[in-house]
Amino acid sequence: MNLYETLAADIEGQVARGVLLEGEKLPSVRQTSQRRSLSISTVLRAYSLLESRGVIESRPQSGFFVRPRPKASARPAEAPKALVLSSEVDVSRLVLSTLRTIRTQNAVPLGSPYPDPAPFPWTRISQYANAIARRNQHWSVMDDLPPGNPQLIRQIARRHLENGLAIDPSEIIVTVGATEAINLCLQAVAKPGDTIVVESPTFYAMLHAIERMGMRALEAPTDPNEGINIEALRSILSQQRVAACMVMPNFQNPLGFLMPDARKRELVELLSQHDIPVIENGVYDELYYGDSHPVSLKAYDTKGLVLYCSSFSKSLTANYRIGWALPGRYTAQVEKLKFLNTLTTPSLPQLAIADYLQHDGYDRHLRQVRKGYAQRARMMAAAVLRFFPEGTSVSDPQGGYVLWVELPAGVDAMQLYAKALERKITVGPGHMFSARGSYTNYIRLNYSYPWSKEIEDALRTLGRVIGELL
Amino acid sequence: MNLYETLAADIEGQVARGVLLEGEKLPSVRQTSQRRSLSISTVLRAYSLLESRGVIESRPQSGFFVRPRPKASARPAEAPKALVLSSEVDVSRLVLSTLRTIRTQNAVPLGSPYPDPAPFPWTRISQYANAIARRNQHWSVMDDLPPGNPQLIRQIARRHLENGLAIDPSEIIVTVGATEAINLCLQAVAKPGDTIVVESPTFYAMLHAIERMGMRALEAPTDPNEGINIEALRSILSQQRVAACMVMPNFQNPLGFLMPDARKRELVELLSQHDIPVIENGVYDELYYGDSHPVSLKAYDTKGLVLYCSSFSKSLTANYRIGWALPGRYTAQVEKLKFLNTLTTPSLPQLAIADYLQHDGYDRHLRQVRKGYAQRARMMAAAVLRFFPEGTSVSDPQGGYVLWVELPAGVDAMQLYAKALERKITVGPGHMFSARGSYTNYIRLNYSYPWSKEIEDALRTLGRVIGELL
Repeated sequence: MNLYETLAADIEGQVARGVLLEGEKLPSVRQTSQRRSLSISTVLRAYSLLESRGVIESRPQSGFFVRPRPKASARPAEAPKALVLSSEVDVSRLVLSTLRTIRTQNAVPLGSPYPDPAPFPWTRISQYANAIARRNQHWSVMDDLPPGNPQLIRQIARRHLENGLAIDPSEIIVTVGATEAINLCLQAVAKPGDTIVVESPTFYAMLHAIERMGMRALEAPTDPNEGINIEALRSILSQQRVAACMVMPNFQNPLGFLMPDARKRELVELLSQHDIPVIENGVYDELYYGDSHPVSLKAYDTKGLVLYCSSFSKSLTANYRIGWALPGRYTAQVEKLKFLNTLTTPSLPQLAIADYLQHDGYDRHLRQVRKGYAQRARMMAAAVLRFFPEGTSVSDPQGGYVLWVELPAGVDAMQLYAKALERKITVGPGHMFSARGSYTNYIRLNYSYPWSKEIEDALRTLGRVIGELL
Repeated sequence: MNLYETLAADIEGQVARGVLLEGEKLPSVRQTSQRRSLSISTVLRAYSLLESRGVIESRPQSGFFVRPRPKASARPAEAPKALVLSSEVDVSRLVLSTLRTIRTQNAVPLGSPYPDPAPFPWTRISQYANAIARRNQHWSVMDDLPPGNPQLIRQIARRHLENGLAIDPSEIIVTVGATEAINLCLQAVAKPGDTIVVESPTFYAMLHAIERMGMRALEAPTDPNEGINIEALRSILSQQRVAACMVMPNFQNPLGFLMPDARKRELVELLSQHDIPVIENGVYDELYYGDSHPVSLKAYDTKGLVLYCSSFSKSLTANYRIGWALPGRYTAQVEKLKFLNTLTTPSLPQLAIADYLQHDGYDRHLRQVRKGYAQRARMMAAAVLRFFPEGTSVSDPQGGYVLWVELPAGVDAMQLYAKALERKITVGPGHMFSARGSYTNYIRLNYSYPWSKEIEDALRTLGRVIGELL
């Protein structure tokens, strides 16, 4: 191809791909000549070629524009593709696919890991963001270097204090969501090849983090009401070297239990004896159904071995991507890793959340959300037991917004996932919650959305499909 | 300690640490009782104790407040601490310390890796952010799942096209700055233990990324004007297994060279023959001094082996933390890793930058910045040659904003760093640009700031200190 043909092909390709839209002005001949180091005449030849092909048109005194194209008939919505999953379930692909299906096809979001965003005070937070942006403050990347924005750090420390945990604010590292916090903490305490003890079932993001860093997950027996089995853990620790432990003591995803305080204390003591750090995932801590905020493992930590991770994504706004870590004696390492991983967290979202926390009704908002979740937990459990075949049992969540459902033996949750998707219903197959291929007849259901006929119908449909799979 | 004493100690500690500020209202007795599961009388006893100690005061009808404390005499600004660095230079600590010194002590920012933020159009970008926040749009985390916000992706594709590179927009993955993009790309193409070829000297963030993932950096000879030595690379590839190559062909940090196009083509061809992916760091691409935008390695790539990484941090705004990757045949893997690393990039910064690119004067802004940088490159080079002892030589940057200075043999740049810091001047010691302990008599100087007497004096002082070190 000649130079002008190459240029014309480039532009035509970008029009076809929607990078250049109908009616959009092309860069001028002079600009294009300069930017691409082509002669004026080459650019002119390319534009003429595109004009003759009907891709662009010249308008007197104004330049070249992308021509409107004949309207193609509306493309039918893509049919949901059933994922073919081998024994090695690609969980992140499954989660992404579920989310995209919910979003693009309005599927029933029972499989979503995220809460219904509707009751979140995004209007208020936007107003704070607006006020901050309006100040036109001159931000440099230096302002919010790790550990993070000082105002937000103070608000996070206050919130912990209000919830009964006095922490040193210099321990707080602001991150891009709890996801980054967990990744950084894990990397601070363990290295490739190390063994990490997790609950079973465990939240898949933890399995991902472990796998991604070339570590090994060891799934410890976990009681659906009391959390990780301390005796089993004791026996594991006496038999092999363990680099770290990762748990979610409050409203665990997917089991929903609240680990009793005595158990938390025992766990921290046991791990302290072995000098083993524990990463505590506290993202549901604010979503309790009981009278008071649950106690964190951190409260029992005297040796700086608890690395607490949380975020505002499940209790305020997911979209701002603000999380934090309290990494105990690993604070310096996590701060450094934060710097290496993403340098800093954007300031505008940090400041908007700090202002909201300082001036607004976080508690009022949370009270409403908690009340709704507690009620829907019971409604969804009842509906599942009513519509699903005999042999089904459900968890009894004490906080958060997910229900863990055991289906009759023999039902394959991935098959159910695929068949449900054909009916525009999403579920979280149990396969995602273990790296060992356990929980193949379990599913996780999200009950954060307001109860509706649609949800009830979806559960009825699921019950029928499960019956067919039996 | 009793329960009430513990509570009082917690609150007193938070006041001492500045989490609770003077005059700030404490949570009510009822709230604290509920949140911490303590009886009303326990909380009241704690508050009374704090009142008797003068930490808080009760105000009729309004509750308890933190009492103003007697003003301590203003603390003298902390003297800059000279870092004691072993042969294992902790580069991230050095960079963080440099930035903090610049920020908190107004040190001369010759050692900063970031451009002077002053000429950046942050006012305009804030206005777009404001308009977006004002719309109060209901964002869910699902809206901008990887690969990223569709509007921003279209603008990035357009910008590449304007700069002469036609790319498929579905290849673009939005990240938290180029830092995240580089980390994810490296992880997509190599695994712990693998060997990665880099330039020598090389930008330290690349060395960090390699080290952090347990990979091995192999520093290849690099010509200060033409970039990585292709013959040397050919010889390396014939002798050992290399998993990937990381380069910065345009305005390399710290050398500032523009790799000739013929060399770029040769490099891509050589790596393609061996089927070795190359991560291209393009963060300075928009900061060219020549007539046209430099060509990317990506332009010569026919096999999808070039993973291009860039950001708006060096050309528009660092604080919004928006970067992207064009990972070629590794796009699916990088998209998945993005999901695992930080889930999504915050929407508000993505949308604000998309709006700015679509509606505003990015090119006008850049023309001014480029002109200033080109001029200051010459001024700083001249001043260095004038003030520094004989035996000093300087680079000839073709873009970007850093000068690479070779000091007379025997001068230790870390000693210079420490002595300069005592005089509130920062420099980038050459030690940071190699994992092998090379470049101990080199420094990197940032010339993005407007020329001033302060900068000239700082260079004169540096020259004197170097003389003393000889």
